[in-house]
Amino acid sequence: MRAYQLPKRGAGIDGLVQVERPDPQPAYRQVLVKVGACSLNFRDLLIANGNFDPPVRDNFIPLSDGAGEIVAAGPGVTRVKVGDRVAGCLFQRWSGGEAPADSHAAALGGGIDGMLAEYAVLEEEGVVKLPPHLSLEEGATLPCAGVAVWNAMVEHARLQAGQTVLLQGTGGVSIFGLQFARAMGIRTIITSSSDEKLARAKALGANHGINYRTTPDWDNAAMTITEGRGVDHVVEVGGAETLVRSFGAVRIGGSISVIGVLSGYKAELNTGLFLARRANVQGISGGSTQTFATMARAIAVHAIKPVIDRIFAFAEAPAAYRYLASGTHFGKVVIRVA
Amino acid sequence: MRAYQLPKRGAGIDGLVQVERPDPQPAYRQVLVKVGACSLNFRDLLIANGNFDPPVRDNFIPLSDGAGEIVAAGPGVTRVKVGDRVAGCLFQRWSGGEAPADSHAAALGGGIDGMLAEYAVLEEEGVVKLPPHLSLEEGATLPCAGVAVWNAMVEHARLQAGQTVLLQGTGGVSIFGLQFARAMGIRTIITSSSDEKLARAKALGANHGINYRTTPDWDNAAMTITEGRGVDHVVEVGGAETLVRSFGAVRIGGSISVIGVLSGYKAELNTGLFLARRANVQGISGGSTQTFATMARAIAVHAIKPVIDRIFAFAEAPAAYRYLASGTHFGKVVIRVA
Amino acid sequence: MRAYQLPKRGAGIDGLVQVERPDPQPAYRQVLVKVGACSLNFRDLLIANGNFDPPVRDNFIPLSDGAGEIVAAGPGVTRVKVGDRVAGCLFQRWSGGEAPADSHAAALGGGIDGMLAEYAVLEEEGVVKLPPHLSLEEGATLPCAGVAVWNAMVEHARLQAGQTVLLQGTGGVSIFGLQFARAMGIRTIITSSSDEKLARAKALGANHGINYRTTPDWDNAAMTITEGRGVDHVVEVGGAETLVRSFGAVRIGGSISVIGVLSGYKAELNTGLFLARRANVQGISGGSTQTFATMARAIAVHAIKPVIDRIFAFAEAPAAYRYLASGTHFGKVVIRVA
Amino acid sequence: MRAYQLPKRGAGIDGLVQVERPDPQPAYRQVLVKVGACSLNFRDLLIANGNFDPPVRDNFIPLSDGAGEIVAAGPGVTRVKVGDRVAGCLFQRWSGGEAPADSHAAALGGGIDGMLAEYAVLEEEGVVKLPPHLSLEEGATLPCAGVAVWNAMVEHARLQAGQTVLLQGTGGVSIFGLQFARAMGIRTIITSSSDEKLARAKALGANHGINYRTTPDWDNAAMTITEGRGVDHVVEVGGAETLVRSFGAVRIGGSISVIGVLSGYKAELNTGLFLARRANVQGISGGSTQTFATMARAIAVHAIKPVIDRIFAFAEAPAAYRYLASGTHFGKVVIRVA
Repeated sequence: MRAYQLPKRGAGIDGLVQVERPDPQPAYRQVLVKVGACSLNFRDLLIANGNFDPPVRDNFIPLSDGAGEIVAAGPGVTRVKVGDRVAGCLFQRWSGGEAPADSHAAALGGGIDGMLAEYAVLEEEGVVKLPPHLSLEEGATLPCAGVAVWNAMVEHARLQAGQTVLLQGTGGVSIFGLQFARAMGIRTIITSSSDEKLARAKALGANHGINYRTTPDWDNAAMTITEGRGVDHVVEVGGAETLVRSFGAVRIGGSISVIGVLSGYKAELNTGLFLARRANVQGISGGSTQTFATMARAIAVHAIKPVIDRIFAFAEAPAAYRYLASGTHFGKVVIRVA
Repeated sequence: MRAYQLPKRGAGIDGLVQVERPDPQPAYRQVLVKVGACSLNFRDLLIANGNFDPPVRDNFIPLSDGAGEIVAAGPGVTRVKVGDRVAGCLFQRWSGGEAPADSHAAALGGGIDGMLAEYAVLEEEGVVKLPPHLSLEEGATLPCAGVAVWNAMVEHARLQAGQTVLLQGTGGVSIFGLQFARAMGIRTIITSSSDEKLARAKALGANHGINYRTTPDWDNAAMTITEGRGVDHVVEVGGAETLVRSFGAVRIGGSISVIGVLSGYKAELNTGLFLARRANVQGISGGSTQTFATMARAIAVHAIKPVIDRIFAFAEAPAAYRYLASGTHFGKVVIRVA
Repeated sequence: MRAYQLPKRGAGIDGLVQVERPDPQPAYRQVLVKVGACSLNFRDLLIANGNFDPPVRDNFIPLSDGAGEIVAAGPGVTRVKVGDRVAGCLFQRWSGGEAPADSHAAALGGGIDGMLAEYAVLEEEGVVKLPPHLSLEEGATLPCAGVAVWNAMVEHARLQAGQTVLLQGTGGVSIFGLQFARAMGIRTIITSSSDEKLARAKALGANHGINYRTTPDWDNAAMTITEGRGVDHVVEVGGAETLVRSFGAVRIGGSISVIGVLSGYKAELNTGLFLARRANVQGISGGSTQTFATMARAIAVHAIKPVIDRIFAFAEAPAAYRYLASGTHFGKVVIRVA
Repeated sequence: MRAYQLPKRGAGIDGLVQVERPDPQPAYRQVLVKVGACSLNFRDLLIANGNFDPPVRDNFIPLSDGAGEIVAAGPGVTRVKVGDRVAGCLFQRWSGGEAPADSHAAALGGGIDGMLAEYAVLEEEGVVKLPPHLSLEEGATLPCAGVAVWNAMVEHARLQAGQTVLLQGTGGVSIFGLQFARAMGIRTIITSSSDEKLARAKALGANHGINYRTTPDWDNAAMTITEGRGVDHVVEVGGAETLVRSFGAVRIGGSISVIGVLSGYKAELNTGLFLARRANVQGISGGSTQTFATMARAIAVHAIKPVIDRIFAFAEAPAAYRYLASGTHFGKVVIRVA
């Protein structure tokens, strides 16, 4: 089969090479998936650029997000069958409950081979059936960004209808957050450096937009929008630069999910903020197969269509990486495989 | 002031008498409310008919649901002020967290005087501001039925967008449940003995209706609708006759909230059902002031309008009781006071 | 290898036959365990006697509880290794979180072959390492009874130090409950028909004992012991006959875990009890591998020694079944295999 | 009555003056308490020194911790009675559930008058009965330090028997944490700059002690003690200097409660730590009356005796402040009033 390969963590986007690999075979309770499409996450850039700690094997196939059709099933498989359209789970061995301590050892496109190939072997408990209304390209956008923000908003924050969430930027995580919030009856405040992107977010249902370039104190703006109360939850993707402002935007007793670290790692944080806001901060890294399945049902019931910014061909994979790195996207960046 | 009074629990609807009582005065952290409207609950019938255990004082003013305007505030009041439009909380001393063991001792229209009067004195922590888009008649419908079903669906069942709830009948609890489910992105199955009421429920957004007269095995019908999976939650208002079927309709790992006992108390239950379904059953009796406030915000954000079946004049209070007892209503039965 | 076999569900204890079977081989992410000991549960009697619904394959090896040493590991196994002493999990495919709907299809000694054999193949995620201070006989007692009551008391009831639990009888579930309660700082009330067993329970740390033969209204006795407040939690193993009394013993806002159905299934239940007590009732059937691992750590930290009533030789397996059926045991009944 | 008074926030310990004030009178649902003893918290130093933001009224009576006997009850009081021995709750209007946004407006010794006086008027829902085995001096130590660490370990972290908590230093919060952990079956690691204090902590049941002066990388030491797994929870009282190490000590999926800020506010924090550890950080400020009552029951059941370092006379109140500021104490510093 054709696949892309990175020689090691930190090899850079230029390190991506297309190779021929033997077709993989499913073992007991595994399935063979003919990949239709992949999507890119900031995590993939971090791995390619070496800014990410978890285990990454040598000469690995990158990308954790992919969807396709099951074309063979190993012995013992009972929950899915040949012909099912599925997406792979970032963490192949996190069925439910708490994340296992070794979750990254079985993370697609890191500890194990990922999805940027014609075929992938996945654990039976590491796939989720796609909602029927989604194409494979759309389905490929769900595993990382969708599951993480669902985990943040639904499982960590336990947001209730009528509450308010603040979403940072218009990348994949935040746009899924916006769509889920709408389905859940949650009000949304979204930030962006671009009025044009804010307008698109509003067209998708955002209640409020804040241009953080023209309004750098977006925390105060959020406080004003909520009439001095503060937002119930912030989905933090910015990292060091934004976390302090997130404390300024959240209500007393509210919560912050730290999903991403776009702007870097080091923040000078006033630890008194935790006390003053009685805030809860949770680091979120993906979610379990059970979480993914619950999210997939919601996507099906509400006929949510993931927002794809651009689809690249398989041969253009390095260009897709560079496009994501440019930060100009709105929603997800996809690579068509089959 | 004018008020209705019942001499004691079980005096019957005929025991309702209109009386003159001195205007009450608010003490420390209490407010005086000029009542605009009350609404009736099945609980009020049980008390009038004597089928209800909790403490009921002699010569009490009945009804736990009422809304009005604050016209005076005692010393120490900080959270509300004169002029605020509020509803009273069924349990005047349950601010948040777990219900106090003596909650019924301070229950409106039972342990203490209720709302069927021109004025009522309420605890500061026993009132919730009305969403601005609601009339006093609409606001008066919220405290019992609304809070109980919100407590059931949001706090007990923790229903998530995309899940399914089964609602029994078209009384106040179930119709609020239907409206909340819609705001939360929950699919709904509602039962009724009347196709006409089912049609009205569908007009309000119900996804599925089952006529339990023509389909007495509505549990199987619910199982079919959910493609054999079962519903995530049942809001049980029927009591003995329906509980067994609720077990038949709920999914493995699902939950049932027991809010009402319309059909009586004694059920022959197969205790093995708890095991077979891994089900969770929770008895729900109202909710805290915090729960009410959270619900009120959701009602405001989603501009939910309570469904009022009929409004009676103050002088017609006994007729309102009898109308509720007839069981022909759809939504809430209201008595206008001011 | 030598193994016992039951031709089908309901074959009776007399249906148990000793057979020779080929040694099983571990596949991908499976391990081969040389079984040292098994223990018996009421569940095994129900299956043998046909009083149990879940799937049971023909000619299956019975018993879900067993412990032994890993003697071979299939490919892909990373969490355990040859030489580890482990117990098998009742549900081989319930790693964590919510129980999968098809959990019983992979239940040891039911949907799949069980432990009453010289060797067993188990999923890597279906075994838990034994605390080092336990013998294989002691380790074999943990999977069903221990995990279920831990699940009930810790995960469902979330019992906190200083609270009170009521335990019914002195079988395996209740004696584990007693030992866990002691480690957690929970007061215990235990019931039995035998003063001698109550004395033994007190020697193990029970705070109060009630002889339900001489005090049939043990619910009132529990209410007296708790000074009218009621117990925080009841671990219900009795089924129909005891559930009504459990409602009488539990505090307002308390909870009941339904684990067993010793006295049969049909109970006439007053559904008003759910409301009056604001009680929560949860059906418990085992627990996940994560739950088992958490319990095992507590057993290790607290050096808890499971209480074994009697150990039978492999050749005496039918006698062990009959001994359990007699109901005279205190703690667990074990069969030594190796 | 005699009382101490501070003219305003930041007046310093020298600003403490003893004054005569009129005896306060209880209003509706309030009680009058004859104060027997008070205890000091770091919070009191912060207020006196002006390093604390929440509202503080002018000429206020300081100290939030105090215990005494109810000598009069206002109208409407039903849950306590004259003669009851009680402690006051830091937050007088936080009965249960989530903290109200205005909790500090009714905080003893800050937004309202505190306990350093012969009499105090408290809300009925702002007192908790003392466990009978405690003296008033001992009872006075519970409200701030005890409730906060119970809230952290039991409600936030939901620690389970067999898990491990790391406690920082030997002040009131950590010593209560140690005693509660022992009652709950939790292993403890405690840090101190003094081997002598570590020895005393071990005599109270601490499993492990780390001298952070001789072992500045106590996070690595904690990792070694837990065999590379990390602790389940850290009770963070140190603030800026310790938070980074707390991330180093906590297990993947573990949690940190930020209760105190002894070493100051500004910390340079690597936001990637939240992701790498999947950690949860919760700011804790006291707890509700319900939480206090649950803790008091556990203290009673386990006959826990608070550890008092030293008792000062009423006339020595400023000396008590200075002693706490010196940081040489082990456990609580108390002022006897009556």
